[in-house]
Amino acid sequence: MEFSAKQIAALLGGKIEGDENRSVSEISKIETAGNRSLCFIANPKYEEYLYTTDAAIVLVNEQLQLTAPVKATLIRVPDAYAAFASLMQYYSEMAKSELPKGIEQPCFIADSAKIGNDVYIGAFSYISAGAVLADGCRIYPNSFVGRNVQLGTKVTLYSGVKVYDECMIGARSIIHSGAVIGGDGFGFAPQADGSYQKIPQLGNVVIEEDVEIGANCTIDRATMGSTLIRKGVKLDNLIQVAHNVEIDECTVIAAQAGIAGSTKIGKRCMIGGQAGIIGHLTIADHTHINAQSGVSKSVNDPHTVLNGTPAFDYKSVLKSQAIFRHLPEIQQKLARLEQELRNLKSDNTATAEGQ
Amino acid sequence: MEFSAKQIAALLGGKIEGDENRSVSEISKIETAGNRSLCFIANPKYEEYLYTTDAAIVLVNEQLQLTAPVKATLIRVPDAYAAFASLMQYYSEMAKSELPKGIEQPCFIADSAKIGNDVYIGAFSYISAGAVLADGCRIYPNSFVGRNVQLGTKVTLYSGVKVYDECMIGARSIIHSGAVIGGDGFGFAPQADGSYQKIPQLGNVVIEEDVEIGANCTIDRATMGSTLIRKGVKLDNLIQVAHNVEIDECTVIAAQAGIAGSTKIGKRCMIGGQAGIIGHLTIADHTHINAQSGVSKSVNDPHTVLNGTPAFDYKSVLKSQAIFRHLPEIQQKLARLEQELRNLKSDNTATAEGQ
Amino acid sequence: MEFSAKQIAALLGGKIEGDENRSVSEISKIETAGNRSLCFIANPKYEEYLYTTDAAIVLVNEQLQLTAPVKATLIRVPDAYAAFASLMQYYSEMAKSELPKGIEQPCFIADSAKIGNDVYIGAFSYISAGAVLADGCRIYPNSFVGRNVQLGTKVTLYSGVKVYDECMIGARSIIHSGAVIGGDGFGFAPQADGSYQKIPQLGNVVIEEDVEIGANCTIDRATMGSTLIRKGVKLDNLIQVAHNVEIDECTVIAAQAGIAGSTKIGKRCMIGGQAGIIGHLTIADHTHINAQSGVSKSVNDPHTVLNGTPAFDYKSVLKSQAIFRHLPEIQQKLARLEQELRNLKSDNTATAEGQ
Repeated sequence: MEFSAKQIAALLGGKIEGDENRSVSEISKIETAGNRSLCFIANPKYEEYLYTTDAAIVLVNEQLQLTAPVKATLIRVPDAYAAFASLMQYYSEMAKSELPKGIEQPCFIADSAKIGNDVYIGAFSYISAGAVLADGCRIYPNSFVGRNVQLGTKVTLYSGVKVYDECMIGARSIIHSGAVIGGDGFGFAPQADGSYQKIPQLGNVVIEEDVEIGANCTIDRATMGSTLIRKGVKLDNLIQVAHNVEIDECTVIAAQAGIAGSTKIGKRCMIGGQAGIIGHLTIADHTHINAQSGVSKSVNDPHTVLNGTPAFDYKSVLKSQAIFRHLPEIQQKLARLEQELRNLKSDNTATAEGQ
Repeated sequence: MEFSAKQIAALLGGKIEGDENRSVSEISKIETAGNRSLCFIANPKYEEYLYTTDAAIVLVNEQLQLTAPVKATLIRVPDAYAAFASLMQYYSEMAKSELPKGIEQPCFIADSAKIGNDVYIGAFSYISAGAVLADGCRIYPNSFVGRNVQLGTKVTLYSGVKVYDECMIGARSIIHSGAVIGGDGFGFAPQADGSYQKIPQLGNVVIEEDVEIGANCTIDRATMGSTLIRKGVKLDNLIQVAHNVEIDECTVIAAQAGIAGSTKIGKRCMIGGQAGIIGHLTIADHTHINAQSGVSKSVNDPHTVLNGTPAFDYKSVLKSQAIFRHLPEIQQKLARLEQELRNLKSDNTATAEGQ
Repeated sequence: MEFSAKQIAALLGGKIEGDENRSVSEISKIETAGNRSLCFIANPKYEEYLYTTDAAIVLVNEQLQLTAPVKATLIRVPDAYAAFASLMQYYSEMAKSELPKGIEQPCFIADSAKIGNDVYIGAFSYISAGAVLADGCRIYPNSFVGRNVQLGTKVTLYSGVKVYDECMIGARSIIHSGAVIGGDGFGFAPQADGSYQKIPQLGNVVIEEDVEIGANCTIDRATMGSTLIRKGVKLDNLIQVAHNVEIDECTVIAAQAGIAGSTKIGKRCMIGGQAGIIGHLTIADHTHINAQSGVSKSVNDPHTVLNGTPAFDYKSVLKSQAIFRHLPEIQQKLARLEQELRNLKSDNTATAEGQ
């Protein structure tokens, strides 16, 4: 597909600077763009590339001041990043016309499963008894949908997703390859002989609308009731969500973070990669937790920013971490002070004796 | 299914307080119970809910003292938690009557594989040459069982489990979706040109009886000999067990922990989430390792409790962590002391000179 | 298969000490070797086993000095570890004659896919439209190869690997079970109402030749352009590689490490288990990053060794960590000094007043 600067400017409501007939066939980063590329500059630190790039068309912020001549055709828009995102979305929507369709064979669909209209089911996928797939669901090959699972409209399960029995996934949610939804929570009762008896995990997982779950995440079913992922939550890859956890609306969590059992995370939180949160806590709305932090206490105040293990107030952690690097000097200084004090005392004694 | 207080009390040997004819159709948490719910209270901090809950029946400890009127029918038992676990187990066993059975088509079973009685093999599962599945195994759809793999009686592989060639899994063990058993250990010999030559991983993984392995865990095969998971071990999700590791009986490990090559973990240890243990260590029986700890030395004494990175004695770590928060004040105090000492010295000099 | 000491010595160019007709049928660790075993000793700390082992044949370093009689036949070579690795490689190559071959049914191969010679495609694997599999590829059962994916000669995808559309994997690379190549990068534009809009991830993943990717790793596709894994890179299990990351030649990364978006890792780096590297950094060649470290700044100097969170110079971290353990004593010492200084000042005052 090919687009001219004129077409793109029309689509975005932007203002052209340069040749309006130049055209592009690919989207690139400005550092590596070729002469058929469309790029954007939102971050000022990439501005230098504007004067050397081979790109055909560059989206820039309305108010950008040029400091040298530019070869590319510019399209000025109020927010270059947002405009670029819209454009990519548009491009991506067009690509969807090529999405796979229909029921491929062989697949396994139990007699009692209910399959909506315009559903794609890839070969080697398995739809269990009582499962309900609403209109427009796309189930890529080698996926497993357990008994009585309910998938809302336009849910996407990429290849190899496993959804255990009784779980529910809301409309438009996207689950990436290898994610496991509804495995047993980790619950065992210690026995007198030191062994463990499995506690049956009788609940389920409920994922609401517009959620995205990354590749190879594991979201365990509740012991009773539901592990709950509210609408708009975005999880990166390899995240562990234990039984009975609740994650409220529009919280985003980076890769390899883990949340232990029964913890409740508020709305619009941001949790960094490899962070860990122990069980049975409550984390207030808008909490930010830094990468690799270990949270061991509930957070009561919204907009708290945490860091470190055990995690506490972000700025305080930074101060302590900065001093941590200087512990050897602190130790030396302390030893020197001790010595000086000792000297002073013996001087004083000498002075006193001398008097 | 529906059960009356009378039936449940009979099953558990408990004592009824209230209407013995009230009945329940679901198991719930006391905080969210409806009027068809059965609940339990073991932890005193949930006792307050007893006086407000809509639950029909609540299991409580024999000696519980009521401090207000209760609407629910109570069943008193010696240990409410254990009674509840038994009840859930019972419920779960009943549910097993609905488990899938038989050999679904299409599946792939090599001619030389041996399949016991009452085995379930789901569609799109692959049983390689020489594999042996004992009676009562349940292999959910899209699983892979490699060459000469041996599965004991009643082993469960949930959907999408991959077991590489030559591995062995003991009776009643449960492997959750996406777990990979027997992938190559991470062994490479550095070459003169800076590249790496793969060291063939010729061993296997041996998992004994009554083990549970969580979703998306990875347990690598030994370079030679066996990576060994002893009976009764319980692993949560996303855990990494490297080649030639040995984990002894009834040790439990929380999600996202990782154990590097050739380390031996003792019996009945408890290892927290996201903890890491480096290679070639020996960890004594009953060791507790806190979440996110990094263990870099062997543990010789049983019942040691470790924390932090690098991990050391739990209580000492807590003390150091508490002071870590106050490093800025310590630094200030030290600066003040230095200044005071300097003042004192100049005073002394002045005094000395003044004399 | 059985080999005599004479055959092995001939293969390795080694020198026999003892009975050249002794033969072996298995490869073992020296600690657990039986009388049909071949072992090696490279690490001096295992030398003690040489005098007690039942092994039939032991490979040792040329210059090893015996301190007691040995039952086993010894084969002396310049580098026992390298010789052993070659031997295992040889053994492994022989085993490859038993590798699965051909196209198993049922599998799904789109009409427009191009399949080379000597390719193995296991049952229930799915090869999408436009995919190209060069000669000698081996695709184990239940794998998914997306649209227009290109696999070089002799690529191995173990059971359950998922490769999203448009990704490329170079010759001889090995991808272990459950790895997900090319899932969407984690990119969302925050909206005014607090929700997030998905940013389409239009790039791909390019994996070059001789790469190994461990089980259940996740390597995300670029937003634009390519996430790039250069030749000879080795990744252990459960590693997260975010969108637009580049990992240069022959870097090795241990299990559960994570690399955030757009970070560039140099050549021949070594990154420890559970380490994390934040986004948009550049890490110089030959950097060593210790297990569980958290890297938050670019590394400019090659051969830097980092440790801790936030990571800094390895030796400095060790010093600070050592003092961290003694923080309680430091705090006490500081309090004592304060008291002594106070005493001294009041003494001085007393002295001064006394004058």
